[in-house]
Amino acid sequence: PGEPDPALFPADAFARRLRRAARRISPQAAGYADYHGLPALRTAIADQLVRHRGLRIDADQVLVLPGMQAALALVAQTLAAPGDRVLVEDPGYAGARAAFAGSGLRLTPVPVDSEGACIAHHCRTRAGPVRFIYLTPSTQFPTGARMSLPRRQAVLAAARAQGAVVLEDDYDSEFLWRGGAIPALHALAGGDGVIYLGTAAKSLAPGLRLAWAVVPPGLAEPLAQAQRNLGMGANVHVQAAFAGLLADGGWRAHLRRISRAYAAREALLAEGLVARCGSALRLRRPDGGLQLVAEFSTPRDEGLILAELRQAGFAVSALSGYCIAAPRCGLVIGFAEADAARVDRFCDALARALGAMTA
Amino acid sequence: PGEPDPALFPADAFARRLRRAARRISPQAAGYADYHGLPALRTAIADQLVRHRGLRIDADQVLVLPGMQAALALVAQTLAAPGDRVLVEDPGYAGARAAFAGSGLRLTPVPVDSEGACIAHHCRTRAGPVRFIYLTPSTQFPTGARMSLPRRQAVLAAARAQGAVVLEDDYDSEFLWRGGAIPALHALAGGDGVIYLGTAAKSLAPGLRLAWAVVPPGLAEPLAQAQRNLGMGANVHVQAAFAGLLADGGWRAHLRRISRAYAAREALLAEGLVARCGSALRLRRPDGGLQLVAEFSTPRDEGLILAELRQAGFAVSALSGYCIAAPRCGLVIGFAEADAARVDRFCDALARALGAMTA
Repeated sequence: PGEPDPALFPADAFARRLRRAARRISPQAAGYADYHGLPALRTAIADQLVRHRGLRIDADQVLVLPGMQAALALVAQTLAAPGDRVLVEDPGYAGARAAFAGSGLRLTPVPVDSEGACIAHHCRTRAGPVRFIYLTPSTQFPTGARMSLPRRQAVLAAARAQGAVVLEDDYDSEFLWRGGAIPALHALAGGDGVIYLGTAAKSLAPGLRLAWAVVPPGLAEPLAQAQRNLGMGANVHVQAAFAGLLADGGWRAHLRRISRAYAAREALLAEGLVARCGSALRLRRPDGGLQLVAEFSTPRDEGLILAELRQAGFAVSALSGYCIAAPRCGLVIGFAEADAARVDRFCDALARALGAMTA
Repeated sequence: PGEPDPALFPADAFARRLRRAARRISPQAAGYADYHGLPALRTAIADQLVRHRGLRIDADQVLVLPGMQAALALVAQTLAAPGDRVLVEDPGYAGARAAFAGSGLRLTPVPVDSEGACIAHHCRTRAGPVRFIYLTPSTQFPTGARMSLPRRQAVLAAARAQGAVVLEDDYDSEFLWRGGAIPALHALAGGDGVIYLGTAAKSLAPGLRLAWAVVPPGLAEPLAQAQRNLGMGANVHVQAAFAGLLADGGWRAHLRRISRAYAAREALLAEGLVARCGSALRLRRPDGGLQLVAEFSTPRDEGLILAELRQAGFAVSALSGYCIAAPRCGLVIGFAEADAARVDRFCDALARALGAMTA
């Protein structure tokens, strides 16, 4: 769950952009020179973040990377030492944990509620300094909660008190299904102690292998050097194509289009689940994101229910699979490709699975 | 030196391929599924290596990566522990050294002669086990020497005796300016104890961020998992475009075209240097590659000569910059973009610099 609908990829527009990039790419861009990102793309990304996320940055602080995972691995390998502690959301994103664990960091889970991760309450009570606080504040993954403004301020205060760096994974701030946008942690902190991370994986496609990190001015050069040594470079044609879409407004028009589609699909799934599974599920309607979390109202065997859904042709994930310290039981259901017929069949299968369990 | 001529990039053919890829990419390919490479590309690469480099492998052993540097970093981080020893060529490729040093490996330089690196003689005499032997046997970088068959067999014997893994950086086996092709170390060893690495950086462009590693069958899955955790994924459109060029013979036709051009440029530069600088230089005509090494016949101040060339508009590199234990003085001169007028001006400037030094 969480992958975008490939059918919504703007294939023709992107194809034209890629073709143009291959024909016109500069000799400099085609070589080794702009390893940390084409200047045009770094400028276009900075411009978007200033306009739409409230960041006060310039293009020199932007590194272009071949995916969010590369950004996390780069930061973990470069700005922390093995044994350092990182706070992670629980439930949370497994890819980030893999990047941190792969660099020898120690993970400390922090619980998540309807306002996002409860950092301030939970990091005070634990021993040892914290190097990173990893968060998905725009839309907590997988629960879908948008972190409230008071909670954001508490997080920044806690980070300052600990001397920790906040890693703000803003992977889908473009999607708002309910509520309004809230300024990025990076914006609230004036950039101080926050590394901001974004990606084209949700709005376009994971296969683009295109993400970006906004780093403090003094770290841009050492991180770019580490990025080069690790071989974390993004293809220049896709960079040029994306830069074009950003600069001419094509990307924001695309975001409006797909946001309408995804919001409708979320409603379709949520309403179907309420109508068919009723009180057997506790639904959390997501504030953004491409997946929905449904916890079981009474204890259930997650594995059996998943197996029945799989037999019916639906690959959903167990909520417990995203948890570390406090397992929660339920389902994480992607809705990126939902349509009326599919939602009908899915809700049927789930209602049957839930009914069979209680019978 | 060593970058290809951007003007030889097959821009139109590649542009068409990229456009087609963006329009037709499969939902699976656009997502997270084939992180370690599109099946069509892995198959096409394996097929090329079986046909043209004598490897006996199948596509399951091929990992697609966003550049040679990523391949080296992945292998260093995954298959060695900090403190492990790696033999590197001296003079040799700085990028590889950075990848190894970045993973905490200890570098042991091995001298290079006209048959390539002298591994067998030099690794016996040193203390401590060797984890990796890093080599550019097709065309030693930067000297341009093709490793002879007896030397290759000696390398494999030494690696077996030490229990070391040979990292065969076959970055430009496609280019042959003189002599014939010699089977890859991977082919000679039957794949045993050799990891084979290739790249599209020289035949197409570094900015593609496209390379490949051939790994032992048992390591393919763990290395692919590590690759995913490190975020070392290549863009899927460029993968599909390159797979198309490989499969329809377009790439080999392109190689023949650019080989003719580069061989002529190498001759132009070498003959110009002989005619104008004569006995002041000891030229090593390269067996392949895109750069030529000219050592000074008598001791010279590299820095002064480089500065004069820079003033005349030529960015060549100091040979000593590629050296660790045994500095050698001279120039590493790229010829990818050489033409008669440019060679003329360059040889003029160099003759002047050399003359001024002896005057």
